[in-house]
Amino acid sequence: MTQIFNFSAGPAVLPKEVLAQAAAEMLDWHGSGMSVMEMSHRGPEFMSIYKAAERDLRELLAVPDNYKILFMQGGGLSQNALIPLNLLGHKPEGATIDFIHTGSWSAKSIKEAGKYAKVNTAASNTTAVPAQADWQLTADAAYLHMCTNETIDGVEYQPDFNDTRFKDRVLVADMSSHILSRVIDVAKYGVIFAGAQKNIGPAGVTIVIIRDDLLGKALPVCPSAFDFKLVADNESMYNTPPTYGIYIAGLVFQWLKQQGGVAEMERRAKAKAELLYAALDVDDFYQNRVAPANRSRMNVPFYLKDESKNEAFLAGAKARGLLQLKGHKSVGGMRASIYNAMPIEGVQALVDYLNEFAGR
Amino acid sequence: MTQIFNFSAGPAVLPKEVLAQAAAEMLDWHGSGMSVMEMSHRGPEFMSIYKAAERDLRELLAVPDNYKILFMQGGGLSQNALIPLNLLGHKPEGATIDFIHTGSWSAKSIKEAGKYAKVNTAASNTTAVPAQADWQLTADAAYLHMCTNETIDGVEYQPDFNDTRFKDRVLVADMSSHILSRVIDVAKYGVIFAGAQKNIGPAGVTIVIIRDDLLGKALPVCPSAFDFKLVADNESMYNTPPTYGIYIAGLVFQWLKQQGGVAEMERRAKAKAELLYAALDVDDFYQNRVAPANRSRMNVPFYLKDESKNEAFLAGAKARGLLQLKGHKSVGGMRASIYNAMPIEGVQALVDYLNEFAGR
Repeated sequence: MTQIFNFSAGPAVLPKEVLAQAAAEMLDWHGSGMSVMEMSHRGPEFMSIYKAAERDLRELLAVPDNYKILFMQGGGLSQNALIPLNLLGHKPEGATIDFIHTGSWSAKSIKEAGKYAKVNTAASNTTAVPAQADWQLTADAAYLHMCTNETIDGVEYQPDFNDTRFKDRVLVADMSSHILSRVIDVAKYGVIFAGAQKNIGPAGVTIVIIRDDLLGKALPVCPSAFDFKLVADNESMYNTPPTYGIYIAGLVFQWLKQQGGVAEMERRAKAKAELLYAALDVDDFYQNRVAPANRSRMNVPFYLKDESKNEAFLAGAKARGLLQLKGHKSVGGMRASIYNAMPIEGVQALVDYLNEFAGR
Repeated sequence: MTQIFNFSAGPAVLPKEVLAQAAAEMLDWHGSGMSVMEMSHRGPEFMSIYKAAERDLRELLAVPDNYKILFMQGGGLSQNALIPLNLLGHKPEGATIDFIHTGSWSAKSIKEAGKYAKVNTAASNTTAVPAQADWQLTADAAYLHMCTNETIDGVEYQPDFNDTRFKDRVLVADMSSHILSRVIDVAKYGVIFAGAQKNIGPAGVTIVIIRDDLLGKALPVCPSAFDFKLVADNESMYNTPPTYGIYIAGLVFQWLKQQGGVAEMERRAKAKAELLYAALDVDDFYQNRVAPANRSRMNVPFYLKDESKNEAFLAGAKARGLLQLKGHKSVGGMRASIYNAMPIEGVQALVDYLNEFAGR
């Protein structure tokens, strides 16, 4: 097989070492005679896998003891409903949720939350995150929801926690496409959630990290299988969890630790992103439309100035083993997703091709 | 590795041929240079996997054209909420759902549905399904829900479709633990659902087969990610589906076709179940408490008359490679789950051990 580099936005590239180990263990995990797929989720073999995955993720993100880590199903998209369904039970009718709108994913979150509460878009800009001082926050909002990396729009940011308005405010962050790529202070958030299929593992696993005082506030119509408190009280086994996906996620967590953890991933992400944006910025042959301060290190959308060359660009890329560079259909153009498992050699190969195609 | 036989109730044994193929293709699916886990769900590679899986399942169960097959997340348990959330939108306040209570799973369904509607338990018995003529059905019920194989209680049955009360009644069947093990007439049902982790594939995939006139009736509070109509309209890709689980399910479907399809699985299931129940019935050393007409071909719970020997029984079984025979904690005793992927040699090995342990 030819060396390929897979720039898919998700499901996305995984570490080769993880896939090789999964292949080797497929028919017989550690002499058990069983595949991980065949294990009872409550048996000692899978419980050891689960506990190691939870422990390693807790270590990687330095998750404080008063936070629960849930391994759920449904994807990041489902959390747009499950977050209000789980957090609004203590609020009277008429609760308001504040949102920061920075792209397609926060837009979806706003729309879905409108089914359960009043929504207030406190700030809105999909190419440059408005100054935090200008956010129009509601005094008694149930919580503030933000998507700190917009996978489609390529906008990444971190809130300024020195903002005195954040005191006692519950922050909910959708970190689906940049979790584990930068050091974060979990204690500043009420809920962090992430679909697995970017930096964690296969599609079908969703991570929820929640401060324990926020459990037990579900609306009566919240399905039991998705009630955070029931999931937490049963160590993610209130119903059968996506066992194989959790196993792969656990292997990714081990790989991350071997590589040096999240700080090392952040160092590499900066280096990869700087390399790629520099090539895009040489002249106006390519364009990235995001304000430099908010450019994502994970998802790099770009446009050819002459869009009639799009098909030729993609065909040439494919011929060089540079795959899945087409942009999301809603915004067009190109997109290179450069998650943790993308080696810098892949970014360098893309940069070489960008220069070659531009005739530099 | 020693030959083992895995009697887990789920996640459960998978065909060795399927696991071997998955291992061989793990790093490079069909020369794509990618693992199936790394593929965009909307790319041509995964779309071909998805379409083949859907087509093969449709063929195996002879699903009529006016039924949609959905590949969802959340597990069978989540459907206890998602079914009422999706079917009650056209009913005025005060809708009633009829249930047949035959064990732990239908009991859970009844409890959960009570969050969304009035529930009527039309019949209740966890060891012998009441005669259908005695079911106390509601004239204008939104639908009738039944679990046609109770995984924990080992009760299996099929409704009598000659019952004139069934005309125009919407039947919802939880077939999680016996789907694809017997020939069914899909056209008699409104909705069939099944968690994958018994006869289909890995945990984390849920199959929903729904008659198309039942789509578009969701309650406003139904999360979009679980709205059957949105899922159907987007070919199960309204949000990112559990791609790797669908791939494994597709391999299982291919295996089933190679083995002779559902009719052949039914023939084997009968043979395996007869062999096992005959050994349990020799004398009163072992007991199965289910009425013979309702004994499950998939899940065979049994008790030692002298329960002080339970630990010795399980230890001896494990020493012979007969794994995961402990009964569910809620009912105790033993349970042998003998799904499609369990060869008759495994059942024979268990029977030999049953006889040996009983001193026959």
